[in-house]
Amino acid sequence: MRKPKKLLNDLNNVRHEVMQGLVYAYNGKLTAITDYCAVYGNHIQADQVVIISGGGSGHEPTFAGFVGQGGIDGCALGEVFTSPSPDQIIEVTRAIEKGKGVLFLYGNYSGDGMNFDISAEILAEENIVSKTIRATDDIASAPLSKIADRRGVAGIMFLYKIAGAAAQLEKYNLDDLYRVVNKANTYVRTIGVALDGCALPQSTNFNFELAADELEIGIGIHGEAGLRRQAMTSSDDIVEEMIDRLCADLPFNNNDRVCVLINNLGALSNTELLIITRKVGIELDRRGMISHDVVVGHYCTSLEMSGFSISLFKLDDELQHLYDLPCHTLGWRK
Amino acid sequence: MRKPKKLLNDLNNVRHEVMQGLVYAYNGKLTAITDYCAVYGNHIQADQVVIISGGGSGHEPTFAGFVGQGGIDGCALGEVFTSPSPDQIIEVTRAIEKGKGVLFLYGNYSGDGMNFDISAEILAEENIVSKTIRATDDIASAPLSKIADRRGVAGIMFLYKIAGAAAQLEKYNLDDLYRVVNKANTYVRTIGVALDGCALPQSTNFNFELAADELEIGIGIHGEAGLRRQAMTSSDDIVEEMIDRLCADLPFNNNDRVCVLINNLGALSNTELLIITRKVGIELDRRGMISHDVVVGHYCTSLEMSGFSISLFKLDDELQHLYDLPCHTLGWRK
Repeated sequence: MRKPKKLLNDLNNVRHEVMQGLVYAYNGKLTAITDYCAVYGNHIQADQVVIISGGGSGHEPTFAGFVGQGGIDGCALGEVFTSPSPDQIIEVTRAIEKGKGVLFLYGNYSGDGMNFDISAEILAEENIVSKTIRATDDIASAPLSKIADRRGVAGIMFLYKIAGAAAQLEKYNLDDLYRVVNKANTYVRTIGVALDGCALPQSTNFNFELAADELEIGIGIHGEAGLRRQAMTSSDDIVEEMIDRLCADLPFNNNDRVCVLINNLGALSNTELLIITRKVGIELDRRGMISHDVVVGHYCTSLEMSGFSISLFKLDDELQHLYDLPCHTLGWRK
Repeated sequence: MRKPKKLLNDLNNVRHEVMQGLVYAYNGKLTAITDYCAVYGNHIQADQVVIISGGGSGHEPTFAGFVGQGGIDGCALGEVFTSPSPDQIIEVTRAIEKGKGVLFLYGNYSGDGMNFDISAEILAEENIVSKTIRATDDIASAPLSKIADRRGVAGIMFLYKIAGAAAQLEKYNLDDLYRVVNKANTYVRTIGVALDGCALPQSTNFNFELAADELEIGIGIHGEAGLRRQAMTSSDDIVEEMIDRLCADLPFNNNDRVCVLINNLGALSNTELLIITRKVGIELDRRGMISHDVVVGHYCTSLEMSGFSISLFKLDDELQHLYDLPCHTLGWRK
């Protein structure tokens, strides 16, 4: 049986070392609140609503790698695959909020939801006003009829993009920011496929095992069970099914303008990812959809999981305007 | 024994499908010469020297993913880990050269060297003037006394950046372009480490095997043997040795301005890569070097190899000016 192999230092201090790596990588554009393992950007303006996210480590550059101009403003780093605690969220919020309100924007997981909600309550007593949006783009995690139960995965990047542009560059107030990011959340859909699992730093085993000739469609970014396991197939066949499922879910239609994210979950080769990208293009073209932008690479990873996800984000005029504004973060520059 | 697991279509048509994936990902900014498996950007101006590269597929986004404004102009895609043929190089050169000359800029491998040299000879008969620079940044591939024998690896990205800025944005002529890119080549150093090998599409085995508790320092981007194999160590220990070796080689000194590339060779988690990044920062700071820019991510991969490389690029005033100009490519935006 294959065993995980990792190059680390202190297995129990991963998130702090990741945070320090981010600070060096940002090269002066990121401040760490070291004791609380949280970070914020040095781009924040006095007259903006601040956008704060957080989540488990192990998905880099998600979440903290999207702090920056045109991205999010602050982020609390949980231990690998673990929610940040309320004190982290509260501390970074106190450090950067400007009296214009706070948008908490994170993936829909129970631990994150609980800890952000507790934080929002405590901050409300300090007269810090906040609203919350939970990304729910993973179509495999719950049926459409229970969309609010869906998990957030790679598509959160599109929400960060819209939120950052609206809050920082167009100075939306909190109500308007909440409205537009909520709209964006209803327009994003993601589905993932895994070929092999990943392992927590302390673990001597992978979090799931697939046979040598097996893949799993609908995988979650922590290895949550997907829709089904099946024999390995051609890249084209599985991508066609994924696009079918994505397009049926919103639905996405002929002449829809979409942004497309073809995301590497970790260990898949970029060679395979580009072959996947080719088929996504063929399928969207065949449906008469308009690819407004195509993003390909490692954006929301699951440690060393071998797999990928495809996200579609439908644009209207307001969203397109915000999407096209620049962003300068570690994980995404535009 | 672990076996490769890949999501592909036609195992013998990888480079063409990669090319088609690139065309879709570039979304209108890239033209394919389909029959020759070569691409060029739609940014090329009539009064510039054109920069043409090429190499084996399997390193994406290197090489073709750096075509674009502020990057290279054209690229010939070889089969996985295989040089492009002269007809590919000749065809893309004919398609884009503007009578101002051509810079051939690629990694120093014998097959590439031979095929680019043949192409240059044939093109010279058509009065297309060219000069050639071969990236030689891999310090583990030959001693400093034989620097011209060294292989080119991830550091070629810095040469692309300098060349694109000089040719496209500052309109250097061929002689001046050759001078500045040659200077840049002498200022770049890279060293890599592997934890696990990669496999060609048709192969049922990895191109090299490391034991569960073993790593290899000095690995090449096709799995060429490195300096030594050793027991797995802490991330900090191996990074410290890599920085020691890089700094001793140029040498890099106190107060040197450097650009730093911490490159994921494929399957290593980005979590580990950021922990590596942290230590690179500590080591350069300790030496009193000035990190002008820090680039972290998947830039020059080796299929699904688990490993990473560190590149340092020393700047002088001319190089810094060129480096700071924008670039818009699939693999790198600045």
